[in-house]
Amino acid sequence: MIKVGIIGSTGYAGGELVRILSSHPNAEIKTVTSQSYIGKNYNEVYENYRHIKNLVCKQEDIEKMSQICDVIFLALPHGEASKKINSSVLQKTKIIDLGADYRLQNIDVYESWYTKHYSPDILKEAVYGLCEINREKIKTRRIIANPGCYTTCSILSLYPLVKEKMIELDSIVIDAKSGATGAGRSLSLSNHFCELNESVKAYKIASHRHTPEIEEQLSAAAGEDIVLSFTPHLIPMNRGILATCYAKLNDKYEYDDIKKVYEKYYADEYFIRLTKEGIFPETKWVKSSNFCDIGFALDKRTNRIIVVGAIDNLYKGAAGQAVQNMNIMFGMDEKTGLDYIPIFPV
Amino acid sequence: MIKVGIIGSTGYAGGELVRILSSHPNAEIKTVTSQSYIGKNYNEVYENYRHIKNLVCKQEDIEKMSQICDVIFLALPHGEASKKINSSVLQKTKIIDLGADYRLQNIDVYESWYTKHYSPDILKEAVYGLCEINREKIKTRRIIANPGCYTTCSILSLYPLVKEKMIELDSIVIDAKSGATGAGRSLSLSNHFCELNESVKAYKIASHRHTPEIEEQLSAAAGEDIVLSFTPHLIPMNRGILATCYAKLNDKYEYDDIKKVYEKYYADEYFIRLTKEGIFPETKWVKSSNFCDIGFALDKRTNRIIVVGAIDNLYKGAAGQAVQNMNIMFGMDEKTGLDYIPIFPV
Amino acid sequence: MIKVGIIGSTGYAGGELVRILSSHPNAEIKTVTSQSYIGKNYNEVYENYRHIKNLVCKQEDIEKMSQICDVIFLALPHGEASKKINSSVLQKTKIIDLGADYRLQNIDVYESWYTKHYSPDILKEAVYGLCEINREKIKTRRIIANPGCYTTCSILSLYPLVKEKMIELDSIVIDAKSGATGAGRSLSLSNHFCELNESVKAYKIASHRHTPEIEEQLSAAAGEDIVLSFTPHLIPMNRGILATCYAKLNDKYEYDDIKKVYEKYYADEYFIRLTKEGIFPETKWVKSSNFCDIGFALDKRTNRIIVVGAIDNLYKGAAGQAVQNMNIMFGMDEKTGLDYIPIFPV
Amino acid sequence: MIKVGIIGSTGYAGGELVRILSSHPNAEIKTVTSQSYIGKNYNEVYENYRHIKNLVCKQEDIEKMSQICDVIFLALPHGEASKKINSSVLQKTKIIDLGADYRLQNIDVYESWYTKHYSPDILKEAVYGLCEINREKIKTRRIIANPGCYTTCSILSLYPLVKEKMIELDSIVIDAKSGATGAGRSLSLSNHFCELNESVKAYKIASHRHTPEIEEQLSAAAGEDIVLSFTPHLIPMNRGILATCYAKLNDKYEYDDIKKVYEKYYADEYFIRLTKEGIFPETKWVKSSNFCDIGFALDKRTNRIIVVGAIDNLYKGAAGQAVQNMNIMFGMDEKTGLDYIPIFPV
Repeated sequence: MIKVGIIGSTGYAGGELVRILSSHPNAEIKTVTSQSYIGKNYNEVYENYRHIKNLVCKQEDIEKMSQICDVIFLALPHGEASKKINSSVLQKTKIIDLGADYRLQNIDVYESWYTKHYSPDILKEAVYGLCEINREKIKTRRIIANPGCYTTCSILSLYPLVKEKMIELDSIVIDAKSGATGAGRSLSLSNHFCELNESVKAYKIASHRHTPEIEEQLSAAAGEDIVLSFTPHLIPMNRGILATCYAKLNDKYEYDDIKKVYEKYYADEYFIRLTKEGIFPETKWVKSSNFCDIGFALDKRTNRIIVVGAIDNLYKGAAGQAVQNMNIMFGMDEKTGLDYIPIFPV
Repeated sequence: MIKVGIIGSTGYAGGELVRILSSHPNAEIKTVTSQSYIGKNYNEVYENYRHIKNLVCKQEDIEKMSQICDVIFLALPHGEASKKINSSVLQKTKIIDLGADYRLQNIDVYESWYTKHYSPDILKEAVYGLCEINREKIKTRRIIANPGCYTTCSILSLYPLVKEKMIELDSIVIDAKSGATGAGRSLSLSNHFCELNESVKAYKIASHRHTPEIEEQLSAAAGEDIVLSFTPHLIPMNRGILATCYAKLNDKYEYDDIKKVYEKYYADEYFIRLTKEGIFPETKWVKSSNFCDIGFALDKRTNRIIVVGAIDNLYKGAAGQAVQNMNIMFGMDEKTGLDYIPIFPV
Repeated sequence: MIKVGIIGSTGYAGGELVRILSSHPNAEIKTVTSQSYIGKNYNEVYENYRHIKNLVCKQEDIEKMSQICDVIFLALPHGEASKKINSSVLQKTKIIDLGADYRLQNIDVYESWYTKHYSPDILKEAVYGLCEINREKIKTRRIIANPGCYTTCSILSLYPLVKEKMIELDSIVIDAKSGATGAGRSLSLSNHFCELNESVKAYKIASHRHTPEIEEQLSAAAGEDIVLSFTPHLIPMNRGILATCYAKLNDKYEYDDIKKVYEKYYADEYFIRLTKEGIFPETKWVKSSNFCDIGFALDKRTNRIIVVGAIDNLYKGAAGQAVQNMNIMFGMDEKTGLDYIPIFPV
Repeated sequence: MIKVGIIGSTGYAGGELVRILSSHPNAEIKTVTSQSYIGKNYNEVYENYRHIKNLVCKQEDIEKMSQICDVIFLALPHGEASKKINSSVLQKTKIIDLGADYRLQNIDVYESWYTKHYSPDILKEAVYGLCEINREKIKTRRIIANPGCYTTCSILSLYPLVKEKMIELDSIVIDAKSGATGAGRSLSLSNHFCELNESVKAYKIASHRHTPEIEEQLSAAAGEDIVLSFTPHLIPMNRGILATCYAKLNDKYEYDDIKKVYEKYYADEYFIRLTKEGIFPETKWVKSSNFCDIGFALDKRTNRIIVVGAIDNLYKGAAGQAVQNMNIMFGMDEKTGLDYIPIFPV
């Protein structure tokens, strides 16, 4: 059994990690920590755990945890992980960081979009944990930067087109829609029920921090720098991300030309499901699962391609992918503990 | 592996059965049937199954199914199962009926609330499959009448009080609230999004068919006839039932007196979780699980007890309990394939 | 034009008051005050007012306001109004208090359910502003205790039965369901979108402060003391209250017997709409209006009556009724500024 | 009083027309017709009208109606209006058509996206009733093609940029999100509560019929042909459209450069509200109103502008704008009967 610790276990992503790992056949949760609920039984924080009596939120002590855990998951606000991780910790345990601190290899870009980085030396050890793209690297690294929710959905949707140079790279627009769990459990007027319910809005237009993350990964795939427009929207639902991605095709293509490219990269990927022609992903079909559904249409009138991707933001967009990374790091079947049919209607 | 057939697999309850049984370690789905989707791949009916390619909806043929299946689940509109089931079928296979046809032992009551019954002789073989109450009988019978969703929640909430004669039996009022999956996948104006969303209503007041079902079971527990008031309500959410049950106490009791009674019946029941004093069930804490949460308060000013029960209507209120019944019938650990932490927020 | 002031204008009830009064043909808003947003333009607090540029939140000064306003509305947390109101204020202006401080005539009951009362001498001047019941008194008083949302719906639903002594007074159970605006705009985990959405719960069982308010009014109608069970529930929707009320009939009645009684009291009440037999109120049909819809069924098997009432909690349950009270106090047509068809679907 | 008839009064747009016109000070509803509810009282079709007893759905007879009505509104499926309207009708009455039949001046484009057109001769008489753009023409015409919901929001959002030639015309992408009332009251699995709730999807990608409507109007503004990509999405809420519009700027502009252009066209438009820098429209702030909120951001990294527009699809996107057109046609103040503060939270 892999011994697991979870730091920041009482946010929504942390809670999803606890849940998935509790049912993982090869993992055993040794410690969960929390800043707000130290000493509380986990089932007082989340009453869905009512039947689980012996899980108590501890104060975080990464040094101590690194001695007893084979792997530690961190689900913390950005900036905090980079203060905690260091070589000493990494020698003793593996790290899967669900935050942003190790996602951008370019430290200047990180510091311009986020804050000061406290362990830039660790950065080169980290690999961006988008499993379907970086699987080989993930197998060998000790620290994984688990991708953001918007970015997972956006990159997977566009990767084959960028990699195969089928689109004009300066024409990419990503219009993404997220359920409210994406904003976490911290109280804010934006997430107050009556303010979010029955409305839709765009936010952080041209300034959302997932933008450079998408750009860095797609630029790497393209072999040249990409800048793109990314606009997140808040949808009155709990879970799910839909990314509607637009780009100009750089030639005349038929549907099947594009289809072959997506199949080249994803036909053997269990957690990516390509939809049939004329069918498009909807978030309900992936909810509570690790799947990413992808479909596309050609708009011949404008010679644009519109690619739609859908994931569960807490699952494939956070905790599920983190466990998928763990599975890869520890040489297990990637699907272990993650192979569930999405629940519908839920 | 237990060979399983599902008749009526494309309604919401049927879909939940397919999902739960697909992950059941000791069961293997041999056939799924549907009236509306014969010949269709199941993943065209429910796209959450997109990655499952080889499950096709067949035309129902219970005779043929009974030869290859160890157990057949039926999820059909009332009146249909009673036409299909007969001794010949029951000799070859076991039956778990999610409909109403075998739930009421009193045929007159059945026919006055429902319709003509076509196999009354089978009725005496059937046991009401409320696992926590009728477990011993379930072990030995070949046909199980799986309880209704409202009834499961209502009976479990009130059973200890009735059994121990702590309440005035003519004072019972059950005010129940259900999510929209309870009304199924058939189209109706009531279930049209804009008509149901952002509103709450009572329906079938003093005339809902789950009333006699609750009464028959509680009367059996009490050893005398009970009539009660049951009012269902439709809530703008997908899943969940909350039953708020009111009754006059027949003596002065303290909280702990009542608590002991609930613990007597339920302390060892894995799928029943009693809440602590001052905490009451909410449907979100049981969603996508087989748990039934129960809590109560004493209203000393009126000497009433208010018991609140919560279940997932498609899980413990339908498909989950059906699988729990299967597990009991086949001598397995009752939790097999059902032991999931409720997902939150979902 | 009636000059109006609104203290506590930036909560949901206050906001609804501002909106209704802004369109009132005979009223003119002179001042709005707020604790949290002093100096802010109202359209920064609520952006639906974006086109209204000149409404600014002032600091509260009831003395000063009483000199320029013909009537002051207060929408404050309980306990605050009783500190502000005194004879001097009441000599200069009329008061309509949307809070609880003057709703209970029995000061002991008030202090046992709420907090210390700071102006008990004013209490005898106040009338409980349930317009359809207390219209004559409202006409002549200078201070109105505007009823609570749950209480408005509950009392109107049961009043004719109690007044005409048709039910057993110790058998009353009120099971009420409210949308989330009832809990206001203050942040709490309970009202966080993902915690409230897709779930239903009971809360404050046997302890909600609207209980004594309902009891005091119904006791007055009955001419004897009533204690009853009242259970509020939180529904994942913005607006609306549905009260499902249960009572034992004290004799054998037919539907038309009861109907006549409701018509006796309500046939001429514009804002009360009795539903036809077999039709029951739904909150969607009264949303954004001052109507209270009422319907009932007889449960002959148990000899209970089930009465269902529906209102918009912010409208008839708060701001609309407050304006209705103003209209009565100032001798206007009661419907002035309130006669809107409910909006559907909204 | 203007005598008004409404054909197709029982769909959601028709219902909103009935509601708005019922409160219009200068209009009087003479007839409402329906295909599905002939002979039914309107308050049985929509119970929010419960207090309105004398409004009955008639069978449609446009000839007869044209003799008694000063204006007839049609809210019908596309293709039906073009069969009913002819010169004879237009001589007797004015027409405001909420359907698509007279929106496209190019008959070939109409027939390629829709169906055969039965009165192409009438087309040249019709004006596209986007009030803020075509006000002068609306004043003098007898037939108005009331714009589609998506189109109203999209065109108003982009019009100043196109008119002033500030963007690259082949770079326009419109990603629109609509509440479920946009799909009407007809039953479909897509609009079944549990299928639509808690999910988001794109639909009719690169093939939605509002595309040519947007293109024709923007092309007219630009003085050259525009083709663009338009993608509608379905959001789990009742009302509202948000259009997120992307385009490449054709030069370097500052925020204030763009702001001036929007103010040039809209500063005096009562029903258009420009948001402040950094603030973006949300559908909740315009719900139940005729306002269109518009805001924008410059994405300097990509030199794109992102414009966000929000309307209530049934109000400014249908019935409200239709009444605004009526007001203009009859020489009234454009705001008559439409000047309501949006309701929030509702």
